[in-house]
Amino acid sequence: MTETEAVLAAVRERVDPTAAERERLSTAAERLVERAEDALAARDLDADVVRVGSTARGTWVRGDRDIDVFVRFSPSLDREELETSGLAVGNAVLPDGHEEYAEHPYVKGEFEGYDVDLVPCYAVESARDIQSAVDRTPFHTEYLEVRLDDELAADVRLCKQFLKGIGAYGSDLKTEGFSGYLTELLVLEYGGFEALLEAAATEWHPPVTLDPEDHADASFDDPLVVIDPTDPERNVAAVVSAANVARLQHYARRFREDPRESYFFSSPREPLTAEAVREAFADRGTRALAVRFGDDSLLDLVEDQRYPQLRRSLDGLVRGLEKRGFEVLRAATWADETAVLFCELSVAELPGIERHRGPPVHVGEHAEGFYRKYADDADVYGPYIDGERYVVERERSVTSAAAFAEEELESVALGHAVERLVETGEYAVLADADVCVLAEEFGEELAAYFEPRP
Amino acid sequence: MTETEAVLAAVRERVDPTAAERERLSTAAERLVERAEDALAARDLDADVVRVGSTARGTWVRGDRDIDVFVRFSPSLDREELETSGLAVGNAVLPDGHEEYAEHPYVKGEFEGYDVDLVPCYAVESARDIQSAVDRTPFHTEYLEVRLDDELAADVRLCKQFLKGIGAYGSDLKTEGFSGYLTELLVLEYGGFEALLEAAATEWHPPVTLDPEDHADASFDDPLVVIDPTDPERNVAAVVSAANVARLQHYARRFREDPRESYFFSSPREPLTAEAVREAFADRGTRALAVRFGDDSLLDLVEDQRYPQLRRSLDGLVRGLEKRGFEVLRAATWADETAVLFCELSVAELPGIERHRGPPVHVGEHAEGFYRKYADDADVYGPYIDGERYVVERERSVTSAAAFAEEELESVALGHAVERLVETGEYAVLADADVCVLAEEFGEELAAYFEPRP
Repeated sequence: MTETEAVLAAVRERVDPTAAERERLSTAAERLVERAEDALAARDLDADVVRVGSTARGTWVRGDRDIDVFVRFSPSLDREELETSGLAVGNAVLPDGHEEYAEHPYVKGEFEGYDVDLVPCYAVESARDIQSAVDRTPFHTEYLEVRLDDELAADVRLCKQFLKGIGAYGSDLKTEGFSGYLTELLVLEYGGFEALLEAAATEWHPPVTLDPEDHADASFDDPLVVIDPTDPERNVAAVVSAANVARLQHYARRFREDPRESYFFSSPREPLTAEAVREAFADRGTRALAVRFGDDSLLDLVEDQRYPQLRRSLDGLVRGLEKRGFEVLRAATWADETAVLFCELSVAELPGIERHRGPPVHVGEHAEGFYRKYADDADVYGPYIDGERYVVERERSVTSAAAFAEEELESVALGHAVERLVETGEYAVLADADVCVLAEEFGEELAAYFEPRP
Repeated sequence: MTETEAVLAAVRERVDPTAAERERLSTAAERLVERAEDALAARDLDADVVRVGSTARGTWVRGDRDIDVFVRFSPSLDREELETSGLAVGNAVLPDGHEEYAEHPYVKGEFEGYDVDLVPCYAVESARDIQSAVDRTPFHTEYLEVRLDDELAADVRLCKQFLKGIGAYGSDLKTEGFSGYLTELLVLEYGGFEALLEAAATEWHPPVTLDPEDHADASFDDPLVVIDPTDPERNVAAVVSAANVARLQHYARRFREDPRESYFFSSPREPLTAEAVREAFADRGTRALAVRFGDDSLLDLVEDQRYPQLRRSLDGLVRGLEKRGFEVLRAATWADETAVLFCELSVAELPGIERHRGPPVHVGEHAEGFYRKYADDADVYGPYIDGERYVVERERSVTSAAAFAEEELESVALGHAVERLVETGEYAVLADADVCVLAEEFGEELAAYFEPRP
């Protein structure tokens, strides 16, 4: 047995479901489907019941306890009927469950120890005809069921665990990583986990485009493009960030060079204390700036709404700072009980004046306008001529990064929920030593920040 | 009389040579030519004697005391014979003079109170056949003599004085301004001083190209191109900087808007004291850095060699500072008894670390090389992944602008004479309060620096 084989065998020992686990899950799932069918019959509803997701396809990782059951109604039903009937069946099957809402409502509940989603959808002809995003899911299961044999399913489990270990698993907008379905398609396309790693390590030059059914009917501007075999107009990997593609490439190379079980199981970071944060800034000689939000209007957003808003706001803050000459070394955003835009600065203070370049002297009215505007302004130096242009040195509106965050944050592009809070001043600016208090809430994030890994 | 006419009449009163002055100069110049002709005859040399320059063309400004006399030898003479004979005649005419060297030697001396250059050259057929740069000069005088009437000559004087007043007169490489010959051609081309101002104020969009004889036979990459009427391959305005073209445009507009005599006669600056320099920096909130050279190898250079070297060195210093993150607000170079590269900084100090962006992770060997180089380096943070790339944060080689000037000045592009001094460490770095000592030597330059005008 090679070293790689030994490591993969050891990982399999940890991620493959046990026979007893499979048996239990299979029995529970069958009973669930029966109950759903009975509920439909009792209400004289015309629909079929299908299992979807990783536990239906045999690709779940040991310990996952999710069973997804879809109830497919006729596409002729209107949306309201679908919702009413769907919830009726869901509540009958999962009497202790509760209703949730994605594109339309469904019932979530516990059944014999499993976390169950019972989701109504339309039984459309093909994934191209979907009326709601969830209509697509049964097609994925159909497609994979017949193609993933036990060996490939085992490799899918290895691959999911590897992506979890390197922090690239999950299509939520906080992670921007690989979804379960995408992982399955990649393993299927390359014929196994190791073949996928080989391709990622040695062949991928983003944009990487894969089209298993060779039927692409749209073009995409993403670093990884995997055309959905059930829908030629959809990129299954649309959410995967360039960083997560690079991360998979990086760790694929590391694993192939030195196979170790530890790549599959990341160890949590030791949270940093406030004192350690202070020391880290002292060692680096940099300046700190944080903008902190405590308002529920932002924090109650689901992660898939909150993180894009925070990232957009962080990007706006960084651009705003750099445009005004405050050089940002690195930035990050975190959210838990509060949300934080965190910037580490190389330059946090600037002089009272800044250079302001005017038009070339020869551009007639524009140049004259510039000259006249400043000629009698006692607060500016100049206008003088530099090369062919007028230049003045005028007062800077803010001379510190903290003052910018306090006074001019409204001027940058922010996420909507963030923008509202900034407009009403519902945020706090922390500078330098003050940011250490963030260690109470974001100790692990700060640990990862100051000891960054690929 | 319009306001403009009144102002121009008042300026003429100050710049037109008096009748007595003309008479005296004319007599002295005739005697000089005679003496030169006698000296040629006595040596049995075949050459003719011509007067050139502004006093020959009637375009000199009152008080100028330069008489230029050229002795034109046959082009068949070899260079050595030309020099020997030229100097012999020169020394005979100006027995108290001394030899100077431009492209070849000539004699400079005083004659009846005038400063005289007695220059040997070749009597070539046309300015295109010149064997030495000075051969061209008599053609300029020939060309202008017949075209500049008294009225135009008077306008040339106005124009020269205007250019002096705004600091744009002189083709030396410190000024990079308008030569006398160029001024004459411009006034001739536009038909007068006011017409030239009108064109500069309202029509010029550099590059501006004028070709009085419509015979250009080369192309030029200069903001102002005036093809020499005596040489289709030469731009008479080659030395004029973009700033001086812009300066003429700016002051042309000012004068047309509000004609004032003061534009023609700039008042000298009141030198700044060391204390005033300190206050200026305090007001502006900026940081100072100066590199000062006291070595004769640089200071003994003629200005036309020294200033290009200093400017090139200043440019190198500024680029070097900015490349390393030290933002330069403005910079200048001055020379007198010492030479100085002077920088005013917005950012003079930076943290101990800097961001260093590596290659995209997918570029195979290059990416692997970067990763390996830094993976086990305890002094860097990272490598981590940002977007598709590796990034590290590594130690900065210098954390202050002064340290850069002290330790890394060799790394930037410098003028040759400056480079030698930097290599051997023969320079001093002054930072912040220390630069105030420059006021002793460069008080006027510092006054102009802190109260800049177009």
